[in-house]
Amino acid sequence: MKLKGLSEKELIQALRQEFRSDRENIILGIGDDAAVIRPGGKYQVLTKDLLIENTHFLAALHPADLLARKSLSVNLSDVAAMGCRPRYVLFGLGLPSGTDPVWIEEFMSGLKIAADEFDVSLVGGDVTQAERISISVTLLGEGDRFITRSGAQVGDRLYVSGTLGDAAYGLDLLRDHVKLGDGSQTDICLRAFLDPIPQVALGLALAQLAIPSAMIDVSDGLSVDLRHICEESGIGAEVYEDTLPLSEALMSLSPDPMRMALHGGEDYHLLFAVSEENAPLISKIQQSFGVKEIGRFIPGKEIYWINAAGLREILVPAGFQHFRKGKA
Amino acid sequence: MKLKGLSEKELIQALRQEFRSDRENIILGIGDDAAVIRPGGKYQVLTKDLLIENTHFLAALHPADLLARKSLSVNLSDVAAMGCRPRYVLFGLGLPSGTDPVWIEEFMSGLKIAADEFDVSLVGGDVTQAERISISVTLLGEGDRFITRSGAQVGDRLYVSGTLGDAAYGLDLLRDHVKLGDGSQTDICLRAFLDPIPQVALGLALAQLAIPSAMIDVSDGLSVDLRHICEESGIGAEVYEDTLPLSEALMSLSPDPMRMALHGGEDYHLLFAVSEENAPLISKIQQSFGVKEIGRFIPGKEIYWINAAGLREILVPAGFQHFRKGKA
Repeated sequence: MKLKGLSEKELIQALRQEFRSDRENIILGIGDDAAVIRPGGKYQVLTKDLLIENTHFLAALHPADLLARKSLSVNLSDVAAMGCRPRYVLFGLGLPSGTDPVWIEEFMSGLKIAADEFDVSLVGGDVTQAERISISVTLLGEGDRFITRSGAQVGDRLYVSGTLGDAAYGLDLLRDHVKLGDGSQTDICLRAFLDPIPQVALGLALAQLAIPSAMIDVSDGLSVDLRHICEESGIGAEVYEDTLPLSEALMSLSPDPMRMALHGGEDYHLLFAVSEENAPLISKIQQSFGVKEIGRFIPGKEIYWINAAGLREILVPAGFQHFRKGKA
Repeated sequence: MKLKGLSEKELIQALRQEFRSDRENIILGIGDDAAVIRPGGKYQVLTKDLLIENTHFLAALHPADLLARKSLSVNLSDVAAMGCRPRYVLFGLGLPSGTDPVWIEEFMSGLKIAADEFDVSLVGGDVTQAERISISVTLLGEGDRFITRSGAQVGDRLYVSGTLGDAAYGLDLLRDHVKLGDGSQTDICLRAFLDPIPQVALGLALAQLAIPSAMIDVSDGLSVDLRHICEESGIGAEVYEDTLPLSEALMSLSPDPMRMALHGGEDYHLLFAVSEENAPLISKIQQSFGVKEIGRFIPGKEIYWINAAGLREILVPAGFQHFRKGKA
């Protein structure tokens, strides 16, 4: 097993190669938003995320209840991106000795409220000592069908479930010590980062109507996550500047809202492909959920960015070092 | 939700209270070796463990391949303690930036070998940055039946699957910079700590024959883990010094082998209760697995220690601060 070089992507690629499985009840292994198994009649999706202080969150700036909620939400979002129903949670928590009991109380309250709200059951966990706060969440979901990243076809339309970039700007605000309650516009961005809303109901509705040909959640940024769909589906895409949904808050606050929207990450909106044939079905869900068409899948490998003037350039993901890659 | 005080046990107790679920397909929630759900025909068991550098392991002293293996083994041991078959693994890894690629390669090789050996499939995971190495493993198992901690009855016999205390002494050796290969006796103890063998085949055999009334794996030490069975079953127990299995290595090396065996932890042997009626069945598995009777369940709440001279004293778990509680 060769693992020279240490990028997260390469490591996951190596794992995927090494641990590829052809067992019949493993429907989908490493490399999508969640794994899919089929131990019985229904599909089960499995996902886990490890959130580590100073890599994924700043404990001093993230209210404990919202941190607990977000650690669940990012996993709910993965299950939503599979189009499945989240069901069971396992929670692991590493805490520095001497952690304020009030912090723990608030954290647990936030977890409880979020679990109730999304109708998932905490069935197990692990509490241990750590130098930095470490949060490990595993989520099991189930469904009669599921949507992968790999099914997009040339000609499919590209949709997103809401405004992009707010969370990335919210992190910038947080680093500048702007707090919740300081202003209604800043609150929108702060909340997008501190308390993202996983699109569980939308993911389920889309899968039940069998609308998307491919789906992912926007955790690493549009430019990165769209690339995941393109690579897995073996095609390219183009994104139109004039259709990209930006919040009024972001546009009024940020000096470069479009860069935030394209590369920022942490939005946890759903990004999905819909065939020409299925596109009319979108109207069925558009009354309940604000989804927006932002591009199209094309032949080739590249992702193009078509700006408002109609100029076409290759969309390069590398321009923005975002939080999850260890900027903090 | 009240969480004054910060002990791991109290926290888990609070979680258990707060997140109690009466959904019909959650068979067993927080508080055993693993959770049990029944989404389809079979039971599924879910367990997760978070292993954090300097709390659970010393990265500089633990060979990477054995560390990977152990992080899987401690979860396999939880599933074994439920009497179920381990099936699917999710792996989360937090790594400091600049981690030696050779270390990662060895770690992944160890993981691959262990997964193959125990016939489990790695279906997903997460690699991220962290200041300290953090390893988060989730394991799903399945079975037609499962064994909890809570079924022991007064009069049941107490069995253990192998020698105790080796791992705890192995940790002491490791701290004194004794290495694998330095000696055959020290190797036995070092290996018990660095590369414990989860008793998966034994757990399955016991459950298939429906032999144990209660079962747990010895991760925190006999005195602590036996207390878990007693508390969950609402009874007491007594343990006999002259039957407690100690390795020759431990007896020849340690100044206080009995203390290691009673309170040391990290052994990952199975500890289980068997009724008088089922006791003859033990002979069926005794040829394949070295299980030993070491005590008996009695009325009351206390756990007694009967020494070789026949003196009876209460077994207090608090005497030994072991590794998992953050001694390092």
